[in-house]
Amino acid sequence: MAKKIHLNAFTQCSICPQSKGQWKHPLDRSSTGYRDLDYWAEMARTLERGRFDALFFADIHGTYDAYRGTREAAVRHAVQFPCNDPTVIIPALSMVTRHLGFATTYSTTYHPPYQTAKLFSTLDHLSGGRVGWNVVTSYLPDAEKNGLGEVLPHDERYDRADEYMEVVYKLWEQSWEEDAIIRDAKRDIHTDPAKVHEIRHQGKYFDVLGPHLCEPSPQRSPVIYQAGLSGRGMQFAATHGEALFVVFPNTTVCRAYCDRIRQLAVEKGRDPKHLKILIGIAPVVGMTDAEARLKHEEMMKYASAEGALALFGGWTGIDLSKYGPEDTIGHVKSEGMQFLAQYFSSVDATRQWTVREVGEFLSIASVVPVPVGNYRRITDELERWVVEGGVDGFNLLAVDAPGDFTAFVDLVVPELQRRGMLRTEYEGSTLREHYFGEGQRRLAADHPGSGYKRISGVATN
Amino acid sequence: MAKKIHLNAFTQCSICPQSKGQWKHPLDRSSTGYRDLDYWAEMARTLERGRFDALFFADIHGTYDAYRGTREAAVRHAVQFPCNDPTVIIPALSMVTRHLGFATTYSTTYHPPYQTAKLFSTLDHLSGGRVGWNVVTSYLPDAEKNGLGEVLPHDERYDRADEYMEVVYKLWEQSWEEDAIIRDAKRDIHTDPAKVHEIRHQGKYFDVLGPHLCEPSPQRSPVIYQAGLSGRGMQFAATHGEALFVVFPNTTVCRAYCDRIRQLAVEKGRDPKHLKILIGIAPVVGMTDAEARLKHEEMMKYASAEGALALFGGWTGIDLSKYGPEDTIGHVKSEGMQFLAQYFSSVDATRQWTVREVGEFLSIASVVPVPVGNYRRITDELERWVVEGGVDGFNLLAVDAPGDFTAFVDLVVPELQRRGMLRTEYEGSTLREHYFGEGQRRLAADHPGSGYKRISGVATN
Repeated sequence: MAKKIHLNAFTQCSICPQSKGQWKHPLDRSSTGYRDLDYWAEMARTLERGRFDALFFADIHGTYDAYRGTREAAVRHAVQFPCNDPTVIIPALSMVTRHLGFATTYSTTYHPPYQTAKLFSTLDHLSGGRVGWNVVTSYLPDAEKNGLGEVLPHDERYDRADEYMEVVYKLWEQSWEEDAIIRDAKRDIHTDPAKVHEIRHQGKYFDVLGPHLCEPSPQRSPVIYQAGLSGRGMQFAATHGEALFVVFPNTTVCRAYCDRIRQLAVEKGRDPKHLKILIGIAPVVGMTDAEARLKHEEMMKYASAEGALALFGGWTGIDLSKYGPEDTIGHVKSEGMQFLAQYFSSVDATRQWTVREVGEFLSIASVVPVPVGNYRRITDELERWVVEGGVDGFNLLAVDAPGDFTAFVDLVVPELQRRGMLRTEYEGSTLREHYFGEGQRRLAADHPGSGYKRISGVATN
Repeated sequence: MAKKIHLNAFTQCSICPQSKGQWKHPLDRSSTGYRDLDYWAEMARTLERGRFDALFFADIHGTYDAYRGTREAAVRHAVQFPCNDPTVIIPALSMVTRHLGFATTYSTTYHPPYQTAKLFSTLDHLSGGRVGWNVVTSYLPDAEKNGLGEVLPHDERYDRADEYMEVVYKLWEQSWEEDAIIRDAKRDIHTDPAKVHEIRHQGKYFDVLGPHLCEPSPQRSPVIYQAGLSGRGMQFAATHGEALFVVFPNTTVCRAYCDRIRQLAVEKGRDPKHLKILIGIAPVVGMTDAEARLKHEEMMKYASAEGALALFGGWTGIDLSKYGPEDTIGHVKSEGMQFLAQYFSSVDATRQWTVREVGEFLSIASVVPVPVGNYRRITDELERWVVEGGVDGFNLLAVDAPGDFTAFVDLVVPELQRRGMLRTEYEGSTLREHYFGEGQRRLAADHPGSGYKRISGVATN
């Protein structure tokens, strides 16, 4: 039997978030749709029809201003600007679906853990246990200028984030016993005070007394997403992550990463199967190769290289405007540039990439691979990432939304199902069950969050 | 023609929020409903059928522990605990309604203004301009123990809140020009960078650069709700408030307050009609007086005086457990007790209230008047508050939810409409238009937030 894969749709409440310039494409509806519930509701229904695990929202807290040292290009090309708050959309979308999960980025830098715990418990209650949280430590210097708190050095950010997770696990897993609410009308007791506990967390970064404001939700802790690729980030991901977003230009480097992170998880006492690795990909699919190629050519007509370089600059801090469009990136000396050159040499080692070519490449789905072809060819390619790359599934980007998700669901999903690679029906009802099987609503026993679970009846405070 | 009144439904994402003990009532559905979208959706549809302006959510960030110096009674009687986050429900409810507004409490102490501006812009976009914000400065000492930031002295809280409002007005009203988004495909310009401005706010409490992350929403600034009753709070309310929540035991003190706050608004250069005063009330209504009385008696059976005293202790800091149940409150010496005694003597000057009686009184809708009677009698009573008390409308509490809202909509609303006191159809589509008439989507010209509006084309930075 073929290995079942996982499908996540990746988006943001902004305009063609990863494919700059597509707002000009007649089929892209994100330019006004991003702020409209009907647009999101249609997308969620489509993804549920395609038996996706989840719809995921990235988020941002400032503007990108590395390119030319100004935010002008970011504003001009709508580079994740404007950007709305994704958390408030999730309950609305859970009303129009029954199984699809919803996850969002939420920053440990910009929100106190007590509030974050309340927010995700609420989302988990309202959605019936279908919520995930992509834990980010945040990196955008611009956010600091907007009064959102200090950006710590990279490694210290993760130390603080580890303690942050400890606080929220205590609130979600430890504060309320499962049977605390007894609704005993005779004795006039709604909730048994002996079963609701303070967490009394006192640490280097946080002092939080508790108890948690919310009663236990279906999943208690939301499904934890992670995207850490750096050394310290990988440690954090291997510790806390249940679903990992990764991006690699080819299956060889991907396989090496997967082996490494699974090994790290094992070292932390976790079953590596409890960590699902999802590779970013943006297939351009048609009934035929010719149709797919035409579609891709059409996309390229609207691509905005300058917008893509502004996005890239925001992510990396590298300002490619300093170089001429025909400069090859391999010759430019800077730490960031070397990283970039290495990345592009992995995409195609035979090419000397110019700045212009890099901008064009990034303008369609940024650094994510963009296979183009008929639905069987695309399915073959997905299978190859699973077999050779070692991934558990995919993090899908739509170049033009919602159309590219719809095409994937109409063309690729049935082929995946024919090959036995994708569920034809949901089994459990919570997001965690989509990933780990029916009945697995709560954190696995080997997840560090489970270590904070209270043994019923034994009150330690 | 009779004066048209405004109707707001007041609730919280918690269990029988203001009427402790009603979770035992067979008709109260809040005990599980508060965390269920269907419960809220039904309530929103009912209120829209009743042509209400808005459904309002209070919120809280900690537990009440003044009573007996512990949170035990608060936990036992579900005194606004557990409590979910209300902000994320609003878009879901706007999907199942077309006109009803939604407002929520949101604290200037616990959230940075840049994020608050993003949240309310998102809500306003998703709901098509139907959002209001009850600005609170927060007072609960417990929240501080949960890492939510320092509670400043009362008056300084308002100084800080004034600066906070300046920041959010700048983000909402000034940062984006109306025609900034041009979608000029030919020149590859989505947004004109010359029309999106930094706000460069530097103040005593906040440094915020901007620009605002969100494009202008239908209302730009949400409708500003206020509940300030203290001296400094009244100043703040008269400055910023568009809708005011007030609570008074009788029309005489209410009229004095209304006159005073309208005068304050005039002194601040505002038309007093631009500030709608809504008195809290919890009518128990039946087809006949006998039916209403039976309903009230039934409610009283489930009332929990201890829960009510815990709620009251949380609000005021007064611990009434220190006194015997038969102690009369007029004789107890303490500043807070004198206030309480005065309040209850206004309710009924002929009575010597005991602590037990106070608990019983507060257990039904806390300090809000509870008229009991047939729908014509209740409508008479509402009319009396308008004519004698000088209010513009009502902030309705349901003792048992959603049933008491439904009864009001089925029995009182038609009577109000027959008397010409309530709209039969909505006119505008935004919340602000419900209060101030069709076409008034944005802050009035005499509102201080309007002072930050950018004159198009004149860029000051």
